[in-house]
Amino acid sequence: MTGASARPGRTLSGRFTRSGGVSVLPMDAASPAASLAAARTALRETAPLVHCLTNTVVQTITANALLAGGAAPAMVDAPEEAGEFAAVASAVLVNVGTVHARTAEAMRIAARAAGGAGTPWVLDPVAVGGLAFRTDLAAELVALRPTVVRGNASEVLALAGAGSGGRGVDSTATADDALAAAGELAHRTGGVVAVSGAVDVVTDGTRTVRIGGGSVLLTRTTGAGCALGALVAAYVAATGDPLTGTVAAHAHVALAAEIAARLAEGPGTFAAHWLDALDALDGDALARADVRSS
Amino acid sequence: MTGASARPGRTLSGRFTRSGGVSVLPMDAASPAASLAAARTALRETAPLVHCLTNTVVQTITANALLAGGAAPAMVDAPEEAGEFAAVASAVLVNVGTVHARTAEAMRIAARAAGGAGTPWVLDPVAVGGLAFRTDLAAELVALRPTVVRGNASEVLALAGAGSGGRGVDSTATADDALAAAGELAHRTGGVVAVSGAVDVVTDGTRTVRIGGGSVLLTRTTGAGCALGALVAAYVAATGDPLTGTVAAHAHVALAAEIAARLAEGPGTFAAHWLDALDALDGDALARADVRSS
Amino acid sequence: MTGASARPGRTLSGRFTRSGGVSVLPMDAASPAASLAAARTALRETAPLVHCLTNTVVQTITANALLAGGAAPAMVDAPEEAGEFAAVASAVLVNVGTVHARTAEAMRIAARAAGGAGTPWVLDPVAVGGLAFRTDLAAELVALRPTVVRGNASEVLALAGAGSGGRGVDSTATADDALAAAGELAHRTGGVVAVSGAVDVVTDGTRTVRIGGGSVLLTRTTGAGCALGALVAAYVAATGDPLTGTVAAHAHVALAAEIAARLAEGPGTFAAHWLDALDALDGDALARADVRSS
Repeated sequence: MTGASARPGRTLSGRFTRSGGVSVLPMDAASPAASLAAARTALRETAPLVHCLTNTVVQTITANALLAGGAAPAMVDAPEEAGEFAAVASAVLVNVGTVHARTAEAMRIAARAAGGAGTPWVLDPVAVGGLAFRTDLAAELVALRPTVVRGNASEVLALAGAGSGGRGVDSTATADDALAAAGELAHRTGGVVAVSGAVDVVTDGTRTVRIGGGSVLLTRTTGAGCALGALVAAYVAATGDPLTGTVAAHAHVALAAEIAARLAEGPGTFAAHWLDALDALDGDALARADVRSS
Repeated sequence: MTGASARPGRTLSGRFTRSGGVSVLPMDAASPAASLAAARTALRETAPLVHCLTNTVVQTITANALLAGGAAPAMVDAPEEAGEFAAVASAVLVNVGTVHARTAEAMRIAARAAGGAGTPWVLDPVAVGGLAFRTDLAAELVALRPTVVRGNASEVLALAGAGSGGRGVDSTATADDALAAAGELAHRTGGVVAVSGAVDVVTDGTRTVRIGGGSVLLTRTTGAGCALGALVAAYVAATGDPLTGTVAAHAHVALAAEIAARLAEGPGTFAAHWLDALDALDGDALARADVRSS
Repeated sequence: MTGASARPGRTLSGRFTRSGGVSVLPMDAASPAASLAAARTALRETAPLVHCLTNTVVQTITANALLAGGAAPAMVDAPEEAGEFAAVASAVLVNVGTVHARTAEAMRIAARAAGGAGTPWVLDPVAVGGLAFRTDLAAELVALRPTVVRGNASEVLALAGAGSGGRGVDSTATADDALAAAGELAHRTGGVVAVSGAVDVVTDGTRTVRIGGGSVLLTRTTGAGCALGALVAAYVAATGDPLTGTVAAHAHVALAAEIAARLAEGPGTFAAHWLDALDALDGDALARADVRSS
């Protein structure tokens, strides 16, 4: 039925072979273009298997964004399976958007399995700070040292405050307002923290990278941000470098949004064009993203 | 990455600030146009946070329809969180389409929290009458007095009969066939009942409003009706008036469907155009909807 | 609001009337065209109610594909309801893509209810062979004798081996590599086994049919394969013949993909065009599918 031997549109690909990260030079602060181009190529060539434990609202667009980028998505969130699968995946995404008792347990198991296997994993702390159950869970997960945390300013401020006395949530904060908190959090996890906003900020506590561009239509499309978290996981697996991979994912999403915004007549048609653009964008295009290191 | 500080495409917005309903004149029976236009403006200006406990098939289109209309969607259906969140939301949607034990418990908690906080909430009794578990649950929820019940004729007939001895289900009924049952149900809840059909009927037991137009393609798109229930919640929060808000939501969905049907080549492309049209429609356009009071 | 009395876009239609299969001549090996055309007509005329217990990633596209084809989807996966509903549905789909304890129990109940009622049911063993929990569940379900099993080569090899000593999984296998295993599995269930690949293979253990065509974009669209499983259920209900129905579903999906691939600019726009094409394709078109019996 298809031109490939792969099964059409699988939630779980049959491929459990773990893709090894290829060597991508750590991002050069003065000239990130080469790293971005190499990261895009690495994603396509390694096709990492991304194990997503994510909310039920965004699973479809998350899987489609991973496929468009060149990765292989797999959603497995039963406690009976989450550890077994995380141990063989190339990367793991944990997104608490619609978490409940069973999926919280699966997330704990998957995060521990990823940590034990040395597999990169991304925490997306959706709405943490505003609801006690998930805020407590996120604090547990942060203690397991996610490779990357990706959230908005409010969430990163809440997460950082969770361990140091309750800084509270400022929902109108910009990404840069959360930079100090992000850096503190990065030091605590030993990983990277990304804060989404009009300009995204990515830091490992030492180096800071800002990504501009994008489109306001991303904020009108359910799951665009959550899919970004999954692409971060894919890129970190593909590049083997958390900072470079996280920046490349943000740049890829932003550039694809700019292309889609020019073609779309509204938020409904935007989503389809955004997936098309995620697929079409190559390394040369990604090298031209608005990425500034400091 | 985006032109706004809001996080792209969040399931849960960071905003937990509750939007107050603005004052919209109750619908004038002789001339609903002004109320419809004011309702559309109110929705955009108040951007109500709509807490959705809804089925897993339609969560994506529901969230996207709310975003397109100008509201902020949040899907939270863990029993540990549903009450805390319902108490701070602008409105709550309870849709039993794929309900099971855990989500049923979350729905009970959310409905009670909404009632306690004076927050409007909408019950969508999907397939009630045909399956015992959800039919019993819906009877419990009706006793908690939803601000609006929105269903098809069969479901409204079943719900009305649940408290009065089993009228049974007539799945071929038109919306008007269910008008007496809808009026009885509205008296019991003290709220509004909406019956979807070729012509929709909305009643508070005293006044009745009919909304025409729309497109048959709405019936070929999974979740269009369920998303309508969410828009009802959003409009009731934004207007502060259950009858006006419910009618405005139906008119908005119907008009957007007419526009989308002209652009679509089938049910697949229809869905994207419908979201675009939900976004684009302004108060002046909504004022021209086919709305007749009696 | 709509041009039909049916509720717009329902997850569960109000219609619980079971559609009887119409008589479609068993597929003529030398000339399948007439059977394919008759099957397409039967699907539209009987509009079977397909009860889907399927993974949360693909529920939306599955429901929309069934609606586009002319069937009525209903997703019901609570253990309290699954048996009651399976007994009145026209066909049942069991897809283990995101299965966990509760939905596994609902699947067992639904499969038994379908078997007891003589209702055709389809098993889609997503990723079976690779994860112990679902592999054990699939072995249980196979023992309940599904009318059709539909998977990729790896999954069919794993399922066949599950009862005969662990043949293991070969993820790079083509559909034809799994033909012997498929035939063995078909003898064990007394039903039909379909293996998806570049060329799909369908067998009842005696007759074998191959379906070519399609598009690689099906493999870039989450849920296309899972939706195919649902269309198999719909077609088997509509035709009353497992082999003919399974082949017709595969041909329908493949032809619609070819049309959509010509219109699409990438995987995002492909999905919408594919649904449009599923809707538009009639019996005459289906009769021209690349179907070869042996």
